[in-house]
Amino acid sequence: MKIFVSQLNLKIGDLDGNTQKIVRDMERARKSGSKIVLFPEMTICGYMPEDLLYHHTFIESMTEHLEKIVKESHDLTVFVGLVRRNTDGGVNGLYNSAAIISNGKLLRFYDKWLLPTYDVFTERRYFDPGKELCVIEVEGKRVAVIICEDIWQHARQTGPAQYLRDPIEELKKENIDLLLNLSASPYQYQKPDTRVEVCAKAAKTLNCPVILCCQVGGNDQILFDGYSVCVNANGTLRQLGKGFEEDYMAIDIDAPTCTCSFEYDPLGDLYRALVMGVRDYFQKQGFTKACLGLSGGIDSALVICLAKEALGAENVLGIMLPSQYSSKESVTDSETLAKNLGIETLHIPIEEPFNSFVFLLKPYFGNKPIDVTEENMQARIRGIIIMALSNKHGYIVLSTGNKSETALGYCTLYGDMCGGLGVIGDVMKTKVYKLCRYINREKEIIPNGIIDRPPSAELRPDQKDSDSLPEYGIVDAVLQGYVEQNLSIDEISQKHKIPLETVMGLVQRIHRAEYKRRQGPPILRVTRKSFGVGRRYPIVQGWM
Amino acid sequence: MKIFVSQLNLKIGDLDGNTQKIVRDMERARKSGSKIVLFPEMTICGYMPEDLLYHHTFIESMTEHLEKIVKESHDLTVFVGLVRRNTDGGVNGLYNSAAIISNGKLLRFYDKWLLPTYDVFTERRYFDPGKELCVIEVEGKRVAVIICEDIWQHARQTGPAQYLRDPIEELKKENIDLLLNLSASPYQYQKPDTRVEVCAKAAKTLNCPVILCCQVGGNDQILFDGYSVCVNANGTLRQLGKGFEEDYMAIDIDAPTCTCSFEYDPLGDLYRALVMGVRDYFQKQGFTKACLGLSGGIDSALVICLAKEALGAENVLGIMLPSQYSSKESVTDSETLAKNLGIETLHIPIEEPFNSFVFLLKPYFGNKPIDVTEENMQARIRGIIIMALSNKHGYIVLSTGNKSETALGYCTLYGDMCGGLGVIGDVMKTKVYKLCRYINREKEIIPNGIIDRPPSAELRPDQKDSDSLPEYGIVDAVLQGYVEQNLSIDEISQKHKIPLETVMGLVQRIHRAEYKRRQGPPILRVTRKSFGVGRRYPIVQGWM
Repeated sequence: MKIFVSQLNLKIGDLDGNTQKIVRDMERARKSGSKIVLFPEMTICGYMPEDLLYHHTFIESMTEHLEKIVKESHDLTVFVGLVRRNTDGGVNGLYNSAAIISNGKLLRFYDKWLLPTYDVFTERRYFDPGKELCVIEVEGKRVAVIICEDIWQHARQTGPAQYLRDPIEELKKENIDLLLNLSASPYQYQKPDTRVEVCAKAAKTLNCPVILCCQVGGNDQILFDGYSVCVNANGTLRQLGKGFEEDYMAIDIDAPTCTCSFEYDPLGDLYRALVMGVRDYFQKQGFTKACLGLSGGIDSALVICLAKEALGAENVLGIMLPSQYSSKESVTDSETLAKNLGIETLHIPIEEPFNSFVFLLKPYFGNKPIDVTEENMQARIRGIIIMALSNKHGYIVLSTGNKSETALGYCTLYGDMCGGLGVIGDVMKTKVYKLCRYINREKEIIPNGIIDRPPSAELRPDQKDSDSLPEYGIVDAVLQGYVEQNLSIDEISQKHKIPLETVMGLVQRIHRAEYKRRQGPPILRVTRKSFGVGRRYPIVQGWM
Repeated sequence: MKIFVSQLNLKIGDLDGNTQKIVRDMERARKSGSKIVLFPEMTICGYMPEDLLYHHTFIESMTEHLEKIVKESHDLTVFVGLVRRNTDGGVNGLYNSAAIISNGKLLRFYDKWLLPTYDVFTERRYFDPGKELCVIEVEGKRVAVIICEDIWQHARQTGPAQYLRDPIEELKKENIDLLLNLSASPYQYQKPDTRVEVCAKAAKTLNCPVILCCQVGGNDQILFDGYSVCVNANGTLRQLGKGFEEDYMAIDIDAPTCTCSFEYDPLGDLYRALVMGVRDYFQKQGFTKACLGLSGGIDSALVICLAKEALGAENVLGIMLPSQYSSKESVTDSETLAKNLGIETLHIPIEEPFNSFVFLLKPYFGNKPIDVTEENMQARIRGIIIMALSNKHGYIVLSTGNKSETALGYCTLYGDMCGGLGVIGDVMKTKVYKLCRYINREKEIIPNGIIDRPPSAELRPDQKDSDSLPEYGIVDAVLQGYVEQNLSIDEISQKHKIPLETVMGLVQRIHRAEYKRRQGPPILRVTRKSFGVGRRYPIVQGWM
C-alpha cells in the first residue's frame, strides 16, 4: 500500500489557493498509485490563522472547501487538516482536526489532543482538546492518525508543557499497522534532527512505521522546514522530504524495509531557512523588490546575501548612506560586496541633512553635550531616506539588526530598526560570523575586510561596539542562557564563568530594551526562543 | 465581622514594593478592627508578569515574599494572590492562587479554576486549572474564596469562552455565608456596570454577600479601574471602591444591610482611565516628562489635555512642527490650547529639512509624481525632531493616533506613529470628539476651532481626511462591528445600512494595515478589543 505524503507550502487564510494545491496533489497521488494521501496540519487554512478563527464566516468557508475536496477525492483515502466547530460543548468551541475522507465521502474527524500554548503557540486560545483515538481500516491495515504535538509528549519534547495524556501510549492497545501525523512543526536551529528522533521513539513503542507530513514555508515569523519523515517500525529513517521547499513522496510501506541517511547540515539549514523566510514573506504578499541600508558592517552584508538568494540580484537595492563617521573601508567594501553579488547600489551621503538637523535643533538642545541623540539622528535620517525610496518605488525594506543588538537595545528605534522584516533578528552576532563564513566557503563573496573589521555602528568618531558592550562571545552566552534557556543569573555566571555583575548588567539591558523590540519589525524565528510573538514580557516591570 | 478590602495599584514583578503595600494594608486592616483582609488577584507579582513566570527564581522569590507576609499577618485572616508551583503534575506546572493565612500561619491555597485565554488573557500559557473548592470557617462563618474569572461564567460573561465548570453553581451545596473574590478585572468602556451585575447574580444564587477586590492602575496596555464591589445577599449594591485610584474599605457584613448607588459615568470613566494609563506608564518607570507633536488637530489636542491631567502642565511639552501645508488656524489654535493648559510649546517649522530631503532624493525619484512618499517624509521629519528632543531631554513621546486611523493605516510608520505610548489608540474618532466636548463641558479649554475644523493630516495642499476615507461615522461603525464584535461583512452592512463594498473596502484596509500596527507603540486598552497584545492576526494572509 502506497501512502502519498504532500509536503505543502500553504498561505494562511488563502482557502482557495490551499485547496487548489490539495486537489492538485490528490491527482498526483492517484497517478503514483497511492491509496492514502496525507497532508500537513491545518492544510486548508495554513498554520496559524490566529484570530481569523474568531470569524464564523472563516470557519464556515473552511467547511465548504472541505466539501470540494471530498468531491475530488474519488477512490482515495485522504487525511486533510482543518479547523472545525466543536458542537459537543467545549470551552472554545473549535477543534484542530484532521478530516478523514474515504470512498468519496467524509468518513470522520480526528481532533488534536495536545494543544501547545507556549512560545509561539496559542492553541488553547482557540481550540478544545480532542479525546478520542482514531483508527481506521484501509486495505486490511489498521491506520491511526494524530496531529503534530500529539507525538511529542511521548518523547518528552514539549517545551515547558507536560501533558497529562500521551496518545502514543494510549495507541499501544490498538495494535496498529501504521501511524500518520499531520504536522506544522516550526523550524528551529538543530530541530530537524530532533523531529526524526521523536518519530523513531513512537515507531518503536508502537512497532509500526510512522509517517509525519510537515508544512513547509514561511508564514510571517514562523518558518516551516519541511523534512517530512517516514521511519520504519524499528525506528530507522526510511525516507525524508526535502528541506525548505514543497515536496511529495509516495511511500510503499509493503516494500522491503529500506533506510536513508539524514545528511544534516545545521548551518546550511539555517541559511536556507532565512532565505525561505524572506522569499515567502515577499511572494505571499505579491512583492518582488527589497532594499536595505548597506553600512559596510557584517550584518547588512549577511542580509544582502540572503536577499539576493531569496529574490534575485535584480530585485535587491543596496543603499549606502555614509556620514562623516563612516570609514573609507566601509564604503569600498560595500561596493565590492554589491559588485560580487551583481546588485545595484545607491550612494547617498547623509552629512547634509544631518548638519541641517543639528543646526535646526541647536537652540533647543541648550548647552547639553553631544550624546546618543546625535547618533540616533543619523540612524533616523537613514531611516527616512530608505523609507522614502521604499514608498516611491515599492520596495520592502529589510531590517538588518541581529539578535545580540536587538536583545540589548543597541540599535535605534525608527532608525536602523526600520523595515518590513527583521531578517536576522533571531541570529546572534557570533552566528552572523559563522553564516558569513558559510557564504564565503567557496569564494570571497563578502569581502574579508567586512568580516575582520571590529564591529562598529560608526555613529561617532572611532566608535567600536566594544566601547558599549562586552565582547560578543559573552553577550551571546548570556543571551542564550537567559533568553533561550531561562537560566538564572547565577546559573549563567557559573556555567560560563562570567562575573555575576556582567551577567546582571546584560540581563537588565535585555529587559530595558523591551520597549524598543515591541516596535521592531517581525523577526524570522530560527531558534527555540526568538524575540517577537513567542516571547511575552511586560514593558513596565520591577523584576530586573 | 469586618472585611478589609485592599484595592491596590501593583507594579508587575515588583515583589518588594507590592509586599510593602500588602504589609501596610494589613496594618490598616488591624486598625480598622477587621478580621479578614482581601487583596486583588496576583497581589505579590501584579497582573500579569507573563513570561517572567518562566523564570524559576521569580516563582521562588514569590514564595519568600509570601513568608514575609505570613509573619506580618498576626491575628488576621488574609487572602492574598500569588503564583505558585503545581507539584501534583499538571501541564504547565503553575497555579494562579490565593494564599489563605490564618493565625499567623499559611493555612492553605485556593487555585483558580477558570483560566481566561482569549483577548489579552494568556492564562493557559502558564497555569493549570484548580479543581477544589475552598471554604474556611472564620468566626463561625463559612467563607468561600474564588479568583476573578471564576465568578464570570455564572453570568455567561466570559468572552468567547464557555467553561465546562461553574464554581458558583458548585458552591451552592456548600451553604456559605460569604463569597470573596480576588480580581484583576481590566477596565473597558461600560464594563464597571457589568461587573456589579455579575457579582449580584452570584450573590442571589448563593444567597450571601459577595465581595470582589479589584486591582487598580495601569500596567502597560492593561488598565484596571478598581471599583471593588460588595453586594448584599439579595444582589443590591452595598459598597463600591473608588474608580481609578487605590482605595480600601472596611465592610462590616453583620451590620444592617445598606445600599449605595453607582453614579456611573461612562465618558468620565473613559477619561479617567486614559489619564491613569498615562500616569502609571510614567510613574512605574520613573519618568516624569512627556512631549508630543501638536498639529492643531483634535487628536493631539485630546492627548495633551490627558497628559496635563496625568503629569502636570509643567511636565508636558507641546511641539508645533508646521509645514507649508499647515493652516494658520492650526498654529494659532495650538497656541491657544497650550496657553489654556499652561503648557510650554516649541515652534519648529519643518519646511527647511523637508525641502532639503526633497532635493537630496530628487535624483532617485526619477520622474515619478509627488505621492504619499512626500507626505510620509514630512511625518517622519517630525518624528526625528520629536525623538531628538526626547533623547536629549529625557521626555517620553506620546503618540496621538486614534483607533480609526490606526485601524485603516491612515498614519505614517516611524512618523506620527512614533512614541512610547499610544494614548488614544483605542479611542475611535467619533469618541475623540465626545471626549473633547467632555473636557470642554465647563469652559472652552480646547478651542472650538480645533473641534469644528474638518479633520486633515495637512500633508498636501487642501487635504481633508474625507478625500481618503468615508466619513468617520461609517468608519467607526465598521470598525466596531468587525474589530470589536467579529461581525461578518454582510452583518455589518445590514446592521448599519452601509453598502457592502464600502464595508469590504474598509475591512481590507484594516487587514492591510496589520504590518504598520505591529510596529506601533503600546496602546492603552479601553474597549473590549484593542489593537495590541489582545488581537492577534497574521500580517501575510489571504483571507481578506
